[in-house]
Amino acid sequence: TLQHLFKQIFKAGLELQEEDNSKALLVSRKKQKENTIVDLKGEAIGDGQQRLIMGPCAVESYEQVTAVAKAMKARGLKLLRGGAFKPRTSPYDFQGLGLEGLQILQRVAKEQDMVVISEIVSPSDIEMAVEYIDVIQIGARNMQNFELLKAAGSVNKPVLLKRGLSATIEEFIHAAEYIVSKGNSQIMLCERGIRTYEKATRNTLDISAVPILKQETHLPVLVDVTHSTGRRDLLLPTAKAAFAIGADAVMAEVHPDPAVALSDSAQQMDIPTFNTFIDELTASGLYKN
Amino acid sequence: TLQHLFKQIFKAGLELQEEDNSKALLVSRKKQKENTIVDLKGEAIGDGQQRLIMGPCAVESYEQVTAVAKAMKARGLKLLRGGAFKPRTSPYDFQGLGLEGLQILQRVAKEQDMVVISEIVSPSDIEMAVEYIDVIQIGARNMQNFELLKAAGSVNKPVLLKRGLSATIEEFIHAAEYIVSKGNSQIMLCERGIRTYEKATRNTLDISAVPILKQETHLPVLVDVTHSTGRRDLLLPTAKAAFAIGADAVMAEVHPDPAVALSDSAQQMDIPTFNTFIDELTASGLYKN
Amino acid sequence: TLQHLFKQIFKAGLELQEEDNSKALLVSRKKQKENTIVDLKGEAIGDGQQRLIMGPCAVESYEQVTAVAKAMKARGLKLLRGGAFKPRTSPYDFQGLGLEGLQILQRVAKEQDMVVISEIVSPSDIEMAVEYIDVIQIGARNMQNFELLKAAGSVNKPVLLKRGLSATIEEFIHAAEYIVSKGNSQIMLCERGIRTYEKATRNTLDISAVPILKQETHLPVLVDVTHSTGRRDLLLPTAKAAFAIGADAVMAEVHPDPAVALSDSAQQMDIPTFNTFIDELTASGLYKN
Amino acid sequence: TLQHLFKQIFKAGLELQEEDNSKALLVSRKKQKENTIVDLKGEAIGDGQQRLIMGPCAVESYEQVTAVAKAMKARGLKLLRGGAFKPRTSPYDFQGLGLEGLQILQRVAKEQDMVVISEIVSPSDIEMAVEYIDVIQIGARNMQNFELLKAAGSVNKPVLLKRGLSATIEEFIHAAEYIVSKGNSQIMLCERGIRTYEKATRNTLDISAVPILKQETHLPVLVDVTHSTGRRDLLLPTAKAAFAIGADAVMAEVHPDPAVALSDSAQQMDIPTFNTFIDELTASGLYKN
Repeated sequence: TLQHLFKQIFKAGLELQEEDNSKALLVSRKKQKENTIVDLKGEAIGDGQQRLIMGPCAVESYEQVTAVAKAMKARGLKLLRGGAFKPRTSPYDFQGLGLEGLQILQRVAKEQDMVVISEIVSPSDIEMAVEYIDVIQIGARNMQNFELLKAAGSVNKPVLLKRGLSATIEEFIHAAEYIVSKGNSQIMLCERGIRTYEKATRNTLDISAVPILKQETHLPVLVDVTHSTGRRDLLLPTAKAAFAIGADAVMAEVHPDPAVALSDSAQQMDIPTFNTFIDELTASGLYKN
Repeated sequence: TLQHLFKQIFKAGLELQEEDNSKALLVSRKKQKENTIVDLKGEAIGDGQQRLIMGPCAVESYEQVTAVAKAMKARGLKLLRGGAFKPRTSPYDFQGLGLEGLQILQRVAKEQDMVVISEIVSPSDIEMAVEYIDVIQIGARNMQNFELLKAAGSVNKPVLLKRGLSATIEEFIHAAEYIVSKGNSQIMLCERGIRTYEKATRNTLDISAVPILKQETHLPVLVDVTHSTGRRDLLLPTAKAAFAIGADAVMAEVHPDPAVALSDSAQQMDIPTFNTFIDELTASGLYKN
Repeated sequence: TLQHLFKQIFKAGLELQEEDNSKALLVSRKKQKENTIVDLKGEAIGDGQQRLIMGPCAVESYEQVTAVAKAMKARGLKLLRGGAFKPRTSPYDFQGLGLEGLQILQRVAKEQDMVVISEIVSPSDIEMAVEYIDVIQIGARNMQNFELLKAAGSVNKPVLLKRGLSATIEEFIHAAEYIVSKGNSQIMLCERGIRTYEKATRNTLDISAVPILKQETHLPVLVDVTHSTGRRDLLLPTAKAAFAIGADAVMAEVHPDPAVALSDSAQQMDIPTFNTFIDELTASGLYKN
Repeated sequence: TLQHLFKQIFKAGLELQEEDNSKALLVSRKKQKENTIVDLKGEAIGDGQQRLIMGPCAVESYEQVTAVAKAMKARGLKLLRGGAFKPRTSPYDFQGLGLEGLQILQRVAKEQDMVVISEIVSPSDIEMAVEYIDVIQIGARNMQNFELLKAAGSVNKPVLLKRGLSATIEEFIHAAEYIVSKGNSQIMLCERGIRTYEKATRNTLDISAVPILKQETHLPVLVDVTHSTGRRDLLLPTAKAAFAIGADAVMAEVHPDPAVALSDSAQQMDIPTFNTFIDELTASGLYKN
């Protein structure tokens, strides 16, 4: 019948359109078949091996960062995260140490031979930041801060891009495209939970986003288990799920004394918990180091 | 200071209240420390071993169900699902074969030595249904159909309770409590995705719900990978994540010829795909049979 | 170009399909151009005049219902709501007086010349209920309890159908179609808030649903300001918005002594507040009685 | 009993805490009882009179903006919006005319005696922008771009702050606090729809946010009916609802020829539709000019 014919044409047209759109993107798997591997001073992300990125929520002092870095080093970990510029809901909450925080990270990185990752929140800070850190993180609240994305796309430094609080996967992919379109293709995508009605967890970890992002793009995909769950008791099980579903790396927060942390005290691991976390993750067979 | 003191008392009060509430529930881990193990004619759910529950979305014919059952049997699987009463958005969509569907399931179960699970949608059908099936499924749309929950609580038959489309974990646990409060404690909880803004998947699989439900209750926890994702290409990765995070069983839909299925044709596996699914799940080490 | 042609055909096909679907529905505006007016013993809903449906959340006693009915009568209102069967999250919360509640409603209706509306939760209670009440309410949790919808479609009594907790407008319209398809076309649709991430209100009042439902269907559309907001301070402003956008009626809860109410105590109006509510709504010019 | 006592103390503690928090904010109604009235070159926002802010989505040419400005002027409207910097999901979509767009707005403002409002997306552009425009708009995607908020707080120019795509009301209020804390208290808050599962509208207009924001803060509250609904057929009914519930102003998009618009073509009004919109809004009695 005519209607049936129309529906067939309709479907063909739909697929044609969709294909068109994703073909155009530089981050698309259609543009580049093989995985992008981001090299972080010798630690590869996206090469099929599981990695862990850990560290305190916020840089608070040289001593605090050193304590975490040493605990990590003892377990063979090199990828250290720590916030110097903290985007906080209230202007009266601790906003981070700023430049001083970056300097602390740099000093610890040199002393302990770590690779440091830190969030930058202002386009005008990007150029300064590349002097101090190894990976520029763009946080969830800034995923569609397009000026920041363009600035990060204009330097030669790996970028860790977090999914927005309620960004669709399509918007997330296009945010990465903003960076690549400016010339920087060393990007890691990080699922960190989305905002839903469910309040048992801080956000809802959208675990299915991992295989979708791996399919649609050629970029490495990470899971931040701390911000997606907001619960210390869920870090280990969600880390296992993340590796089982194909994540290239897992991020989690570690603090020498979470009870006195200046931010996110309820969800950071202390050092003994961190050691147990590594032990159990290794025992599960899902993580090899 | 006085304010500090107040805040301490406030926290204590809060914890006291919360403890009160969850202490009261029969399904709570506080009420029963050890896991409930549901025995399905010899197949245990909740004993620490991973199980698979598979079958067609809807029962369409004796031949169709037999084809799936035989494929399952060949891989050592006994837990067969199939819908006879289908809750559909439109009254003009296929509503299931009803009683005839249950009779087909029963016949196939006898011939192929399977355990059958089927959704019941009306309180008045529960007593009839226990003659034909081994497990009563209560679907997402009926999670707060309290009359149906009470009816299922009044018979001596295991119940597979699915999380509502946008139910909180707390509401889900209380729905199970409705069943237990009527005397039936053989309950399995099934996470099947929640409704969010993200449309890349049919629903958003709330993988964190699995460890939370295992912690809060003593009941077995399942993950329905078909309805949570609505995408055939995500069944295998999400099944791996489900087992890695501690699910007792995974549900997925299999149809001998999905292209002509009367419902959910886009998300059911055909039999070769099913075999590959079992192979790869086994190869991952996350599922042992 | 060929691609452009394809896109044109694609759009035509899309529109054709959409038109098909909505043409098929009996509740569709395409099927019936003029508004359905539901006659509630002389009070019309859907005739262009604004109506108010008020009463206690739950029927607690003859005295309680009488007190509210008298207050309503004094302001010229006849449409009295009150719950006898209460669907509650926990099995241990007050579940309503059941049949006794319906009897109280019937007695008060006779004595005070009111029209009574009450929720029915079990298909098997529908026939019994029509003896006692004037309008069958189907609640949010049961919007896709298709057996209940079919039972309500089989009697000759107006039905007030509430939108599900997280139902799409399309699912809501199809739920109404279940009722009409069984022969009962006296249906009122009630927007009552949807579940979102925002917790400042109990639910998020989807005010745009009102003009969409009026456009897509020929049925009267109501707004329940109590359940959508869950806040007494928002009842008046949201009632104004509801009438301004074209709602045929507004529902709100009134209790002689909300502090001791057995359910929803935080959101019901007491009688002086109710009188102020009517005064201010009338003064706004948006409501005429 | 002890438990009861604890619960009372708990409640008192809870209220104390909440009061503390909102007392601290400069935007809070507790800090300033009377309404803030923002003066836009003689047009007051927040003085109890309803205002309309209209104009094209994006500035495309001098002729286009002039056509809209003349149509507005003919109806007594002076508040002209138009985007020069457009935050777009894809880097390959039209990004706005930038500085040239601001220059066009300034020229039209002078010639037609209009007040111009335009979005700024980069902290480093704020100082430049105040030379050209009368109101700095901060868009939904930048609601938690704290560097941008701080920059806008450091100039002496009114700010129109839009609610984030999925911002809570609390986060929205705190975003305004970022601006005020830097010294600029001329702020207007704009509800523009939130992201939910419902896709019948582009976003879900959270109409209840209006009275909540008016209660919690002393700032004027606007409703953007174009971006909240994304549907031309809903602009008029939602504008009525917005004024009925107490919004100080309504924003909507007008374009001389929406079919060829470079962005948002499906939701802008053409000039005859704009005239009908004004006529019907006036006829409703909810808007007086």
